[in-house]
Amino acid sequence: MNREIYLDNSATTRPYDDVIEYMGEINRNVYGNPSSLHTKGIEAERLIKKAREAIADSMGVTPKEIYFTSGGTESNNLAIRGYLKANPRKGRHIITTKIEHPSVLEVYKHLEKNGYAVDYVEVDSRGIIDLDDLKSKVTGDTSLISVIMVNNEIGSIQPIDEIVRIKNSVNSQAAIHIDAVQAYGKMPLMPKKVDVDMVSISSHKIHGPKGVGALYVNKALKIKPILFGGGQESALRSGTENVAGICGFGLAAELTFKRLEESRSKVERLRDMFVDGLKNSSFEYRILSPEGSSPYILNVSFRNVRAEVLLHHLEEKNIYVSTGSACSSRKKLHSHVLTAMRLETCDIEGAIRFSFSAYNSEQDILDTLKALEDILPKIQIKGGGKR
Amino acid sequence: MNREIYLDNSATTRPYDDVIEYMGEINRNVYGNPSSLHTKGIEAERLIKKAREAIADSMGVTPKEIYFTSGGTESNNLAIRGYLKANPRKGRHIITTKIEHPSVLEVYKHLEKNGYAVDYVEVDSRGIIDLDDLKSKVTGDTSLISVIMVNNEIGSIQPIDEIVRIKNSVNSQAAIHIDAVQAYGKMPLMPKKVDVDMVSISSHKIHGPKGVGALYVNKALKIKPILFGGGQESALRSGTENVAGICGFGLAAELTFKRLEESRSKVERLRDMFVDGLKNSSFEYRILSPEGSSPYILNVSFRNVRAEVLLHHLEEKNIYVSTGSACSSRKKLHSHVLTAMRLETCDIEGAIRFSFSAYNSEQDILDTLKALEDILPKIQIKGGGKR
Repeated sequence: MNREIYLDNSATTRPYDDVIEYMGEINRNVYGNPSSLHTKGIEAERLIKKAREAIADSMGVTPKEIYFTSGGTESNNLAIRGYLKANPRKGRHIITTKIEHPSVLEVYKHLEKNGYAVDYVEVDSRGIIDLDDLKSKVTGDTSLISVIMVNNEIGSIQPIDEIVRIKNSVNSQAAIHIDAVQAYGKMPLMPKKVDVDMVSISSHKIHGPKGVGALYVNKALKIKPILFGGGQESALRSGTENVAGICGFGLAAELTFKRLEESRSKVERLRDMFVDGLKNSSFEYRILSPEGSSPYILNVSFRNVRAEVLLHHLEEKNIYVSTGSACSSRKKLHSHVLTAMRLETCDIEGAIRFSFSAYNSEQDILDTLKALEDILPKIQIKGGGKR
Repeated sequence: MNREIYLDNSATTRPYDDVIEYMGEINRNVYGNPSSLHTKGIEAERLIKKAREAIADSMGVTPKEIYFTSGGTESNNLAIRGYLKANPRKGRHIITTKIEHPSVLEVYKHLEKNGYAVDYVEVDSRGIIDLDDLKSKVTGDTSLISVIMVNNEIGSIQPIDEIVRIKNSVNSQAAIHIDAVQAYGKMPLMPKKVDVDMVSISSHKIHGPKGVGALYVNKALKIKPILFGGGQESALRSGTENVAGICGFGLAAELTFKRLEESRSKVERLRDMFVDGLKNSSFEYRILSPEGSSPYILNVSFRNVRAEVLLHHLEEKNIYVSTGSACSSRKKLHSHVLTAMRLETCDIEGAIRFSFSAYNSEQDILDTLKALEDILPKIQIKGGGKR
């Protein structure tokens, strides 16, 4: 069997060894309930505090503005629904984009069925939102705008600065929530500098454990819980804290931010190497990720190829990639992101997402290109013709 | 420093070594996203399936009836709110008891503010619900009854059979949800035998990891999600699955149920030994846990003592206990459970919860009794008089 080449890092990442070890240590020795009054509880609480500080530092915010959740999905749900519940008088109009993650899109659809007026901003063929369309949609009744910072399928980066500026020019009272799950730990993200109110992040996308996420909420913003109970996390998120998971997330953030620039440069080099390899190949392909997108994601559509067939052929060679996002890949539906970009069916059906991490090597890229050279001629649909 | 004696197992337990090791192994080797189409995802999904089967087997239900959540709090929230959302025509009247965990009580309070008629059933001085009061409260408009099976503060066990019988005699259409967080793994619990519709359980109370729980939902029951997103867990609980956590929970359930009887006998012996020790002591105390309660929990009130002071003195000797439940111990409020039992203030203020696990030894009990002998005379409030 070939060695493993994991190019599905946007779906999830392998946790750092140090994180795995640290979590084991906590489970063995610091297993107290943070709500307990004795040392076993206080020690657990102290480690959570340390993790909260690490996450806060990484975004230049205060620890009190960081709330731990069970993951990116819960963070997105809490941000949107928790904010709207706490601010019923700010208006019943909410805005998002057509290329959000399901954990935002499905919340908006739910709200739409429950009395909210919802607008979905258009994107262009690069997967970047149409700022004129946004401007035309913001009104005095707009309460919230939720935007995915780095799209999980194609890696397009939204112009958050511009979005905030446009929002403020029409309605400075509306709040902005950023789904930064694919951005966090991969590019600088300073909520206070760009003046966004809430930011969702997830642990398992930065080599932390699954089942943990966090939400930044500006301390001036009111937000209400969506889960009720013992009042943990300053009463915003009840439930016994996932101590080991939270601490693993904190350590993963520390390790990630310590070498953010280095990792990013490496990933950029790998991505460029891959793109060059494609250029020098005889493949018929189209790169769907736009210029200036996150180097961690490269979405490539191969002509006359069904993405799922290519995925399984790569898998036989121990190379792991995605078609669309992991979350929607089982649904056999066309990607809503690629559809919103108005791509042709042939581009959508041949789209593969290669997503990188600092664990990848140049050899991974060379071997993947070599594998594509072997596979593509075998699986190309004959007579696909010019499409 | 004395060796550690952990008697706060109802707050949380130390994970099994095998569970800690298994989770590390999964994080290292099976780190794929279960939604991914390739082997890395399929392997992760296979392990989740195995965990689901272990949990289902432990309750004699089918794997399709088990949904994983982020913990007991989310399970309780999902059961109650998810059921009511899915069954709006079954009535707007809901019932629970006065001695529920906050993750049920706070949900009921929230629903009460949002148009539901809520009844809280009384309990007697043993912390067992008043069946006549229940009977008088069930109506044709009752949609849901939620009951804690084993109370987390005093260990009283509710007569679930009787509750179901009473409910069925008045309104067989109403659903019954059981918060079994303190019962699961400690006594047999067969939802289909006792004819309850939903059961919440939590991993970290049975030596599994924190941040994972599950909800049993009878397949005939309709229930809707309370978190929206990618549609994981058969669309009931979105969010990338906490693979290592879920699998750790599954293994903890296997290990726990394999020796349930043995562990329970051991814990019973330890509890009885402790009670005998109290009887043979010169302490002024009152056992608040009723006859026939769970052997895992022994709530004892010491006269003329402030529980928190005693807790800290025990802690100095490396003995860890609780005052009230961990979830409410930081709130400096009188326990709502002990208050519902109509105990006198002096009993409430001196109440300590000793909670056991199969990890405890006879020596732990002897040392704790010895410690109490040392401490109690020093901290007793003089002139407390007869109360």
